[in-house]
Amino acid sequence: MFISIDGGDGSGKGVQIEFLKEWLDEQGLESVFVRDPGDTPLGDRIRNILLKDPNVEICPKAEAALFMASRAQLVHEKIRPALASGKVVLVDRFLLSTVVYQGFASGASDEEIAELWKIGTVFTQGILPDLTFILDCPVEECNKRLNRAKDRIESKGLEYHARVAEGYRQAAIVWKKNAPGEVFLIDGTPAPEAVFKKIKGILQTRLNRN
Amino acid sequence: MFISIDGGDGSGKGVQIEFLKEWLDEQGLESVFVRDPGDTPLGDRIRNILLKDPNVEICPKAEAALFMASRAQLVHEKIRPALASGKVVLVDRFLLSTVVYQGFASGASDEEIAELWKIGTVFTQGILPDLTFILDCPVEECNKRLNRAKDRIESKGLEYHARVAEGYRQAAIVWKKNAPGEVFLIDGTPAPEAVFKKIKGILQTRLNRN
Repeated sequence: MFISIDGGDGSGKGVQIEFLKEWLDEQGLESVFVRDPGDTPLGDRIRNILLKDPNVEICPKAEAALFMASRAQLVHEKIRPALASGKVVLVDRFLLSTVVYQGFASGASDEEIAELWKIGTVFTQGILPDLTFILDCPVEECNKRLNRAKDRIESKGLEYHARVAEGYRQAAIVWKKNAPGEVFLIDGTPAPEAVFKKIKGILQTRLNRN
Repeated sequence: MFISIDGGDGSGKGVQIEFLKEWLDEQGLESVFVRDPGDTPLGDRIRNILLKDPNVEICPKAEAALFMASRAQLVHEKIRPALASGKVVLVDRFLLSTVVYQGFASGASDEEIAELWKIGTVFTQGILPDLTFILDCPVEECNKRLNRAKDRIESKGLEYHARVAEGYRQAAIVWKKNAPGEVFLIDGTPAPEAVFKKIKGILQTRLNRN
């Protein structure tokens, strides 16, 4: 089973991922956790360019291609082998992030967004999450939570991040109908334990079904 | 006018590009020269990862995406503005290289090669050379000419580079029929001056026609 946690910066992904890792261990499920972009030698180099290098201009198309390069390597080195050996794979972000940030939030048309999604699946070799949890949280609240130095993308301003949040909401509606895996938009504003209770409930049902 | 010089490593691109730059100057044509990948701050960082970092594993799909990222930025920062202001743009390699190296030579199927070409045009925003000169040269001869330290891709061995050379020949045939611009396979084995005479002849006809 391939599980993705997604959502805007400050939506609380980090805490939910920690809860999830612990819970998967408690269930006796062998799991592999990776973050996208990153978690391979190539991915770490790309992550540095994308997030830590505020002086380098990166146009939206180049930005999308860099995320796809990092993800292709992550699928090749880690995700595909882990799934093949029967492990649960948990990822912090996946293709959906690219479609939302470099598509929706960067002013792409519906046609371009569909194209980005399609191209993105080529670079993941068709491998996509079975379950995606999107943490939905108002952008002002997210911004309050991010009280640390922001990276290049986090620094893009409230307006951009409001489009990100709206992009996730639209994505959840569109992909509930079209995507191969299941997508859940989870309210990320309550206390982390309450948010996790919802995620755990959905996950338990899916695991029992398999 | 957008002109691309392409071909295997050691096929003599460098010398022809020098001849071409000089000749364009003599004709009083304002021109911009760029190499792909590279020639933007982002492109230089990507070029370093792709060519100078032999310890980092890069799968073919990630490799293709990195070339596309660099090219997207190059089109955005340099090629599109130069063409818009009426300059001649001369590039050392372009999308064709990705299709040949990461497609043909990496064992991609016909379907995957067509897909790579199509995806590649999305990242160039549909901008493709009007004229592509492919230098065709036997791989043993190319290897003899490369008497300097080889980069990561140049080091991939004779068998890989033989597939590159064959890929260019096939690409020339296929794209003569399908590509929007014109493609010429030029015999790269004669003396550089003789090779350039052919390129110049074709170029003069095209420039007079415009």
